Amino acid sequence: MVKYPTPPMPDAVELDEYCATHEGRFIAELIEALRIPSISADPAYAGEVRRNAEYFRQAALDAGLRNAEIVETAGHPAVYAERIVDPSLPTALIYGHHDVQPVDPLDEWVSPPFEAEVRDGNLYGRGAVDDKGQVWMHLKAVEAHLRTRGELPLNLKLIVEGEEESGSGHFDELVEREQQRLRADVLVVSDTRVIAPDVPSLSTGLRGLAGVEVWVHGPSVDLHSGAFGGAIANPIDVLARILASLHDPDTRRVTVPGFYDSVHELSADERAFFARIPYSDGEFRRLAGGVSATVGEQGWTVPELLGARPTLEINGVWGGYSGPGSKTIIPATAGAKITCRLVPNQDPNDIARRVADAVLKAAPAGVWVTAEPKTGGRPVVTPIDHPAVQAAARAMSRVFGKDPLFTREGGSIPPVETFSRVMGMPAVLAGFGLPDDRIHAPNEKFTLDMYAKGIRVLAHLWDELAVAGIGPAGKTRPVREPV
Amino acid sequence: MVKYPTPPMPDAVELDEYCATHEGRFIAELIEALRIPSISADPAYAGEVRRNAEYFRQAALDAGLRNAEIVETAGHPAVYAERIVDPSLPTALIYGHHDVQPVDPLDEWVSPPFEAEVRDGNLYGRGAVDDKGQVWMHLKAVEAHLRTRGELPLNLKLIVEGEEESGSGHFDELVEREQQRLRADVLVVSDTRVIAPDVPSLSTGLRGLAGVEVWVHGPSVDLHSGAFGGAIANPIDVLARILASLHDPDTRRVTVPGFYDSVHELSADERAFFARIPYSDGEFRRLAGGVSATVGEQGWTVPELLGARPTLEINGVWGGYSGPGSKTIIPATAGAKITCRLVPNQDPNDIARRVADAVLKAAPAGVWVTAEPKTGGRPVVTPIDHPAVQAAARAMSRVFGKDPLFTREGGSIPPVETFSRVMGMPAVLAGFGLPDDRIHAPNEKFTLDMYAKGIRVLAHLWDELAVAGIGPAGKTRPVREPV
Repeated sequence: MVKYPTPPMPDAVELDEYCATHEGRFIAELIEALRIPSISADPAYAGEVRRNAEYFRQAALDAGLRNAEIVETAGHPAVYAERIVDPSLPTALIYGHHDVQPVDPLDEWVSPPFEAEVRDGNLYGRGAVDDKGQVWMHLKAVEAHLRTRGELPLNLKLIVEGEEESGSGHFDELVEREQQRLRADVLVVSDTRVIAPDVPSLSTGLRGLAGVEVWVHGPSVDLHSGAFGGAIANPIDVLARILASLHDPDTRRVTVPGFYDSVHELSADERAFFARIPYSDGEFRRLAGGVSATVGEQGWTVPELLGARPTLEINGVWGGYSGPGSKTIIPATAGAKITCRLVPNQDPNDIARRVADAVLKAAPAGVWVTAEPKTGGRPVVTPIDHPAVQAAARAMSRVFGKDPLFTREGGSIPPVETFSRVMGMPAVLAGFGLPDDRIHAPNEKFTLDMYAKGIRVLAHLWDELAVAGIGPAGKTRPVREPV
Repeated sequence: MVKYPTPPMPDAVELDEYCATHEGRFIAELIEALRIPSISADPAYAGEVRRNAEYFRQAALDAGLRNAEIVETAGHPAVYAERIVDPSLPTALIYGHHDVQPVDPLDEWVSPPFEAEVRDGNLYGRGAVDDKGQVWMHLKAVEAHLRTRGELPLNLKLIVEGEEESGSGHFDELVEREQQRLRADVLVVSDTRVIAPDVPSLSTGLRGLAGVEVWVHGPSVDLHSGAFGGAIANPIDVLARILASLHDPDTRRVTVPGFYDSVHELSADERAFFARIPYSDGEFRRLAGGVSATVGEQGWTVPELLGARPTLEINGVWGGYSGPGSKTIIPATAGAKITCRLVPNQDPNDIARRVADAVLKAAPAGVWVTAEPKTGGRPVVTPIDHPAVQAAARAMSRVFGKDPLFTREGGSIPPVETFSRVMGMPAVLAGFGLPDDRIHAPNEKFTLDMYAKGIRVLAHLWDELAVAGIGPAGKTRPVREPV
């Protein structure tokens, strides 16, 4: 059990009461907010993404934020809003995204993706939890503060991106350009999940990412496998050998020299944290698309593998003929995309270079192999004892009635890495999805109980952050003033 | 040097003289015959394939064949024609194809693919040598006989397929159905090549083919590599391991148990034949698309590898994401197409089953692997001492002024396998392409000297086959009658 100091706090029951009173309207509003098909990956929906940005800009104003505006990028627009109470108070920056994933296969949706529907205590619709619904939680938490007390206990800034689901291609540039306006003491992101409805949890880290694209070049053109087969190297065979060589088949460790050199080895305390995360092999395998066994680096539990160990995964492979029937060729080329998930203190450029070197070293005679490192991102970890993380833990504890577990996300959220890298901002990952929310898939849902609890946690989070000592002068504002 | 009996033969100079006199017209006619874009793989060209069949039907009549007709199949039509001189004479069946390969990339052609052009002694155009030009040689050889002597020395049948370049999908059915009409003492196919203009050669064998399609099934859907990577088996990684396991990395022997069990081991005599085939490593590597080294089963020369050793090649591989940028997934599936080239006495069904078994045996826990054997074909070898092969060797010797080398094709010609399997017909592979003819690629060409020599060889072949003792009663017809 982690020990964190609990400063004296008002009970703030008015926030909970307000949220309870308006719960039905909060749901109705979210249903409305899910109507615009803001699919950023499909250029045909560019107009809808813009219309959606305008919708969220207006919603931010309605909630009580100010200076709300559309922030243009070279791609889809973002939305910015803020409420600066007093420059000497702590400032939090909320990050979310208003774009959504594509919806195909459409015929697998029980109800239309952009006509959200409540069934069995869940709200089904595209963007319900990823991430429109979680942005909406923030707007409702702001509203609760302003309607009950007339003011926020700290300064809030909000940036809602329009391209997260298509790779955040212009977000780095936006952050670089808007550093002044976006500056804050802490970043709060609600785009993650808790372990289970009755197991509140708080992510304190995201894995980093390093990528390499591999090409094996053989003959200059596809060759007839009868006229040449058996006498020259086949690029697919070479590629298979290279890819197979990247893991030890027994220990499942990555064989790339130096891959683990800078990995932060978990302390006994940290392993104890991971041991407290409830884990069911059957449930994990069910969520993992029904696989029959877990397979991973020897010596680690699945929560440790996902949260604290680096990986090397092949995301795609291609070469030769893959159509119907047969085509008896030796292909000219074959290729693969590889990405590694990184943990502290691995460096994406270093790892990408090491993987590329290992690939080139494995290349035999008779072919020409290239291995191109791709832009990656560093792992991001906010220490459990950071005051902002402690504040978030207290807020969760208030609403869930028990202390949250600390976890690490297996994935990466590139914008969080951007804020960490460009602005050095610590991040609190307060998300309220559940593992079975089917994000990116048909029938995405947000469990309404989690939506309601999330709004309350975020409302309490502002109170807690206001007194957490993270502000410029450590100045705090009395968190409870009669409205 | 192989010894074959040379029966007394007239010198038949009138055939050579006729061919020399009409050489220019033969070229002009072929240029015309290459105009129709009979691309069988592209459904958009179905009408052109049919128009081309009609063109070749008329050309067969013009050459002096009879009963020429379009033979319908469930796909593109074939052409049949014949000239039955006397049922008691030997009968040869000529097989060729009138369809051609697609022409892309079109912008790499120096002259338009269907407007054939002579440059530097070569005729450039799609189908010039594969196989319209080689079918045209046969028509001109028939014409030479009929215009100089008024009759053929044996019975000839001609079947010209319209789907060879798209897999001969309906040819088995056609042969089964037309067995009666197609029956002959020997099959003559001109769809192969000689070693070099001054190194005449005669193929006596084709490798067989066995195929297996492999699928590795992991999660039921593509998974997020952050949320699941490192803890479950990645189908691409599993596939790479399986594919890499199929060859010994050092000896390059196929590791599939029993793969070599029934392989006919070359005798010292046979190895001596292979040793006589001129081989230049640099030239082979140039033809093989400029590869930097040859790579093959240890202990064999390249001509032996291609002619007498079985292979296992991966023709295609796929899985996950191969588009631009990156997509951090663990794919649900990955797959590969494998084909083996077979030599006597390997059985395609047996080999496909053994490969499939080896693949399944290599499957680890956590995935579900399938390996589906595909329809293949047996190797076809006509013994060097077969009278028809001897006859062809003599015909080549007459025209080229030296004895041909005996080789084996690395490839397979499925229709030849069909005739061998269904009708038990021995095959003579008298083709006049050259290794640098760029068949299936831009700037396909037929060297005009080879075209002219080929017509003469085929004209002499009929004389030689007529006296080779392969007819039903050993009856031969006097080969030289004054016109």
